[in-house]
Amino acid sequence: MNEDLKLKDWLNENRARGTRFLQRLVQEKSTRGNESSAQAIIIEKCRKLGLALDIWEIGDEELLKHPAYCSDRKDYSGNPNVVAVLKGKGDGKSIILNGHIDVVPEGDINDWTDDPFSGHIQEGKMYGRGTTDMKGGTAALLLALEAIIASNIKLKGDVIFQSVIEEESGGAGTLAAVLRGYQADGAIIPEPTNMKVFPKQQGSMWFRVSVKGKSAHGGTRYEGINAIEKSMLVIEGLQQLERVRNARIDDPLYENIPIPVPVNIGKIKSGDWPSSVPDIAIIEGRIGVAPHERMEDVEKELEAAIDEVCVKDGWLSENIPSIEWFGGRWQPGNLESDHPLITTVGKAFERVTNKEAIIEASPWGTDGGILSNVGHTPVVVIGPGVTASAHDANEYIFLDDVFEAAEVIALSIVSWCGMVEE
Amino acid sequence: MNEDLKLKDWLNENRARGTRFLQRLVQEKSTRGNESSAQAIIIEKCRKLGLALDIWEIGDEELLKHPAYCSDRKDYSGNPNVVAVLKGKGDGKSIILNGHIDVVPEGDINDWTDDPFSGHIQEGKMYGRGTTDMKGGTAALLLALEAIIASNIKLKGDVIFQSVIEEESGGAGTLAAVLRGYQADGAIIPEPTNMKVFPKQQGSMWFRVSVKGKSAHGGTRYEGINAIEKSMLVIEGLQQLERVRNARIDDPLYENIPIPVPVNIGKIKSGDWPSSVPDIAIIEGRIGVAPHERMEDVEKELEAAIDEVCVKDGWLSENIPSIEWFGGRWQPGNLESDHPLITTVGKAFERVTNKEAIIEASPWGTDGGILSNVGHTPVVVIGPGVTASAHDANEYIFLDDVFEAAEVIALSIVSWCGMVEE
Repeated sequence: MNEDLKLKDWLNENRARGTRFLQRLVQEKSTRGNESSAQAIIIEKCRKLGLALDIWEIGDEELLKHPAYCSDRKDYSGNPNVVAVLKGKGDGKSIILNGHIDVVPEGDINDWTDDPFSGHIQEGKMYGRGTTDMKGGTAALLLALEAIIASNIKLKGDVIFQSVIEEESGGAGTLAAVLRGYQADGAIIPEPTNMKVFPKQQGSMWFRVSVKGKSAHGGTRYEGINAIEKSMLVIEGLQQLERVRNARIDDPLYENIPIPVPVNIGKIKSGDWPSSVPDIAIIEGRIGVAPHERMEDVEKELEAAIDEVCVKDGWLSENIPSIEWFGGRWQPGNLESDHPLITTVGKAFERVTNKEAIIEASPWGTDGGILSNVGHTPVVVIGPGVTASAHDANEYIFLDDVFEAAEVIALSIVSWCGMVEE
Repeated sequence: MNEDLKLKDWLNENRARGTRFLQRLVQEKSTRGNESSAQAIIIEKCRKLGLALDIWEIGDEELLKHPAYCSDRKDYSGNPNVVAVLKGKGDGKSIILNGHIDVVPEGDINDWTDDPFSGHIQEGKMYGRGTTDMKGGTAALLLALEAIIASNIKLKGDVIFQSVIEEESGGAGTLAAVLRGYQADGAIIPEPTNMKVFPKQQGSMWFRVSVKGKSAHGGTRYEGINAIEKSMLVIEGLQQLERVRNARIDDPLYENIPIPVPVNIGKIKSGDWPSSVPDIAIIEGRIGVAPHERMEDVEKELEAAIDEVCVKDGWLSENIPSIEWFGGRWQPGNLESDHPLITTVGKAFERVTNKEAIIEASPWGTDGGILSNVGHTPVVVIGPGVTASAHDANEYIFLDDVFEAAEVIALSIVSWCGMVEE
């Protein structure tokens, strides 16, 4: 196919520019609340591509009151959502290309070899927070679009590119885009799947458990109750919950995933004095929600697991820990196995790589849950990079993977939206 | 004995004033770094009693370089140590009366019924942080002195009253007083022993263990190593260490103490994102040192216990946690059982209460370790209040106990220092 070659050639010829674009994105530390400078780079690129831009600060009443809205962020000002549309000639299927611009914090700086926002390139890899999750993916989306435009391919359907904030904290950015009216016949989210096709996505929710103790002087610690020791019982209960929930999952798409719906203990904080017995411990974590599950059922199951821990402990049965569902909340996504979008993307992958596409369920939540459940837009997640690198120190991405992803996405867009023949 | 009655009467007659004095002390929040306003009340009182005042800011070179100095405090300015001397007529034994003015933080404010610094009085108890640990004891010292002075009793030996800072963080205040030259033939420290006589004091040290993990996205948590889970193994190792160390203690003075030398896990902090696998956990705690033990041997024993945990765990054996000995460090105290100071204080107790004195080993460290090991001053710890209340929410002291302690201490001083007969 002639267009396939044109797109491949353009991507090959523009590797240096594309790489530099990704590097600039990575060098902007777009952690939560600091997304604006990275968005500015996206906006500049979209403007040069001639796309119709829609830039707005999210946070209106409709968003804040929506049942799927879940965020503790107080202020969105100065850090906009960006949508850029390439209008089709008509008569084709539309597609949303969704990437998030926010990155998680860099963690312990001592674990990084270079500055976490260096964008340093070595042996074909670019390093830095967000390279994999997911500025590499976002760069692939824009490279795909630029390749199509530069190759003078005219599409029938609309392409709606989205660079959203807040994915790492519950998806308020994508939800705002849905509520602004952006829907489509399909969507691609290039989160790091290592180019596997994920039609189902794990949802997830954050929880906070506050475990009470009784303070005392450390020298007579037996006169107090140590909240840290009691929180260890709660953590063991959560570990047991994870085992029970995962033993139940028999979806073949999860065959190769060691823990399909993990319970992650992400934070603990207790005590303010080494020689006092701490009287409260706060645990924060994330529980995965399987594609077929309802979030409220999973909430109830976790609450029951902690109740079970309490029943077995004299102190906890009198001092039940409080449980809050706060912050991040990602709906699971569940696209039917025979949806044409899966076929389109899978075939594009096969044309580019000469390998068979691997179809699996995603081990983590994405904004795909909101796009599909609230926006009624069928979603496939496929993107460059491996999950192991996301959120880790020395996060990196293979540049080859970014360009391969751009090619697969470009071919998918052309197939899905349809091409106006000359 | 006529003087006994005089002292008792004076204390009875001055209950309201004494109570108000303690209340004023409690209402000043003298947490670390904020000791000055409470010290001002002490200074005012000592000046009225006609004592020779020595008020100075600690932190000179000699202190900072002393092997027993252990503190992370950077600035002592504005928060002085106070020593006030009642000079004897000569030919008697001298005594140090030592109390600390610093209090530990109030903890979770929601656990308190009243403001933690209210000094609220109800049913014979005064409430507030520091009532028991140890402003009640300090008030008892000054009431004893005032009773002696007001009763016109002339002592032979010197009385050296000390109101020091930094006891809760390792004893730099008392160490500074020792280095300034204050030594005596005996010392009383009225920490809350519930009026038991403690000739031996548990020492203690703070430790910090940093446990490494490997960060990852929470949705694929199996690709990381959770530092919180690994720190649970370390905590279990420390719990086991506590069992082993206490099984070994056969000193009859510890007969009634459930855990003679506890290992307290006082703080834990790990993680900065609920849906990331945390890559480091910091545990801080306190290990008790038995009267006969050397601090360096206890350090080695804790380090060996953590090594043992690591050997059994694949990850920890490759990623050995780091151990720091930081902040608080209290020498143990070990007064020989037949020392005359024990007899003097014991008899005073019996004269006041008509009950037999109970002699035990203290379950916690005090500044007595520094007074005896560095200052070569024999120390007995005896004071009002129960340890269970110290460092706890709703800390309180029975006012009766404060006045009983003042009487016992007054009688002890008169016996020990000797009285000039008219």
